[in-house]
Amino acid sequence: MKRPTLIDVGIEAGVSAITVSRALREPEKVSESLRERIAKAIDKLGYVPNPAASSLASNRSSIIGVLVPSFSNYVFADVLSGANSVIEKTGYSIQIGNTGYDPLTEEAMIRKFVSLSPVGLIIAGVDQTETSRNMLETVDCPVVQIMDSTDDPVDVIVGFSNFEAAAASAQHMVDQGYRRIAFVGTRMDPRTQQRMAGFESVMRQHQIYDPALFITTPQKSSVEIGRHLLAGLLDKVPDCDGVFCNNDDVAVGIGLECQRRNLSVPKDFGICGFNDLGTTSQMNPAITSVYTPRVEIGERAAQYILDRAAGGPQPDIRNIDLGFTLKKRASTLRSEAI
Amino acid sequence: MKRPTLIDVGIEAGVSAITVSRALREPEKVSESLRERIAKAIDKLGYVPNPAASSLASNRSSIIGVLVPSFSNYVFADVLSGANSVIEKTGYSIQIGNTGYDPLTEEAMIRKFVSLSPVGLIIAGVDQTETSRNMLETVDCPVVQIMDSTDDPVDVIVGFSNFEAAAASAQHMVDQGYRRIAFVGTRMDPRTQQRMAGFESVMRQHQIYDPALFITTPQKSSVEIGRHLLAGLLDKVPDCDGVFCNNDDVAVGIGLECQRRNLSVPKDFGICGFNDLGTTSQMNPAITSVYTPRVEIGERAAQYILDRAAGGPQPDIRNIDLGFTLKKRASTLRSEAI
Repeated sequence: MKRPTLIDVGIEAGVSAITVSRALREPEKVSESLRERIAKAIDKLGYVPNPAASSLASNRSSIIGVLVPSFSNYVFADVLSGANSVIEKTGYSIQIGNTGYDPLTEEAMIRKFVSLSPVGLIIAGVDQTETSRNMLETVDCPVVQIMDSTDDPVDVIVGFSNFEAAAASAQHMVDQGYRRIAFVGTRMDPRTQQRMAGFESVMRQHQIYDPALFITTPQKSSVEIGRHLLAGLLDKVPDCDGVFCNNDDVAVGIGLECQRRNLSVPKDFGICGFNDLGTTSQMNPAITSVYTPRVEIGERAAQYILDRAAGGPQPDIRNIDLGFTLKKRASTLRSEAI
Repeated sequence: MKRPTLIDVGIEAGVSAITVSRALREPEKVSESLRERIAKAIDKLGYVPNPAASSLASNRSSIIGVLVPSFSNYVFADVLSGANSVIEKTGYSIQIGNTGYDPLTEEAMIRKFVSLSPVGLIIAGVDQTETSRNMLETVDCPVVQIMDSTDDPVDVIVGFSNFEAAAASAQHMVDQGYRRIAFVGTRMDPRTQQRMAGFESVMRQHQIYDPALFITTPQKSSVEIGRHLLAGLLDKVPDCDGVFCNNDDVAVGIGLECQRRNLSVPKDFGICGFNDLGTTSQMNPAITSVYTPRVEIGERAAQYILDRAAGGPQPDIRNIDLGFTLKKRASTLRSEAI
């Protein structure tokens, strides 16, 4: 079948194509029964009006570009979900790119997206290459960096401080009496590195910093890798009494491995995750984690682009910090457990 | 800053805009040192060529539309990831839509996407409304339905049989001696309903079908809801000796709740999940699940669209069934455990 035209709809409804066109443009000027007949014909044929002419005329696409480092990370699925909920009711559409945590892939994707004259761009982090930054600063549309915090965004940034969130978690574990706390980091992307720095600052402040307690891997986060990392950690540092994980999957894996080893949590070993993705709160015992406002970040970023597209100004506050919440649960509440 | 032009690049490199243009079109005709100077200027300014003219001329966008029912479901994140890996190196981009498991939202999204003259469309399932089906049958591009199996696809379908996968799981549990097996289903979208039908057919075949053992909820899958559903199930049917879950999150929640209740798995209670998302295999004990080829489905769907866009024919086999694999693990292997 060919894609149906106005003429086909007219034939189906028993009226001229001009009548169909008028009924679509000015429905209040035709009778209800005619409107219904035309609506039925449109549904039956699957007619879709062609908006090509108007978008060609404006020389501006209807796309909002969203560049994330991973599709298989729940965190970015949530961002996408938030952005989509704001955009789906508009005439705009989301075009996605996966940078794979690689600055040069990111650069290539920015080049591709900028060339499409987007309505706006949403991009994760602040760690773009100089070339990427130049492209983002000169593109003729709003640009929202997300999931981080900086005084020097390209345009605006919507996120939270990874450094502060990790520092708050580390301080909580110190307050609960843990002294040989390991940092377990996967992937080691720039935001994980900031979490590591926040953790390290608290360890140094309490004079319990020990580089042997930093376990990192370039592999991506998973429950399975969490199990393996705990095994390696305890081999290397047997007196380790807790972990701060850069990701909930890793924390869940460590929690399951503690079960297997009959390691008592939180008495002998404390566990803190990051992002509060859902499973942590259901574990035995429930695992402490840092809740990050991922859906809201996607929503706010999308709303900013819509506001600017509607003629709104660049705001005075360009670092929109939505904060985080440390969800204290049984896995670190040693003082209550004892 | 304004988006830089060819003229700006020329000024930066100390040559005319025409020279820059020629160096970009025919790099072999200019000296290496000039090429390098221009490349540096392009990087420094963040210059991006404007391809608007060519896309306007072809009256065809460069987008491949992907419509999925959820962004926060790992299954579709994997599909997206697979499709993206095939498409990212091409000049095409992925535009996404979230139908929210709602046929009318899906209809609206199809209308929006069709109006954009896409290169191809990927859409989950076969349960579109008549209007949606009409639009998909008349759109002037390849259409790939995914994650299901049918003899009557719009164009082609790439997926597996949800009915057969669930039936194979149910048969395995019967083989392991379970007789009071519950079906636990969340969301109850059409693919979950097919899983339920596959499960039911095996129960009827062995004359152990009991409607009391079917526990369903319109809520979306989560580890938390899995815990709650097990509690409700055991209250209602105390002699239940196992569950087949429509989703791994639910299976993990049930596994954690069994730990809490000291219910012996697999001896007193068998657990089978669906999709094999990773956590099931790491649980104590490891949970049986159905591996579904989600990444490959995304890849194959995208590759089909690229092949058709390059002039390839519609294939003879239009139902591309990639199958499934039942991963038998400790949570159901009762005959070995006893």
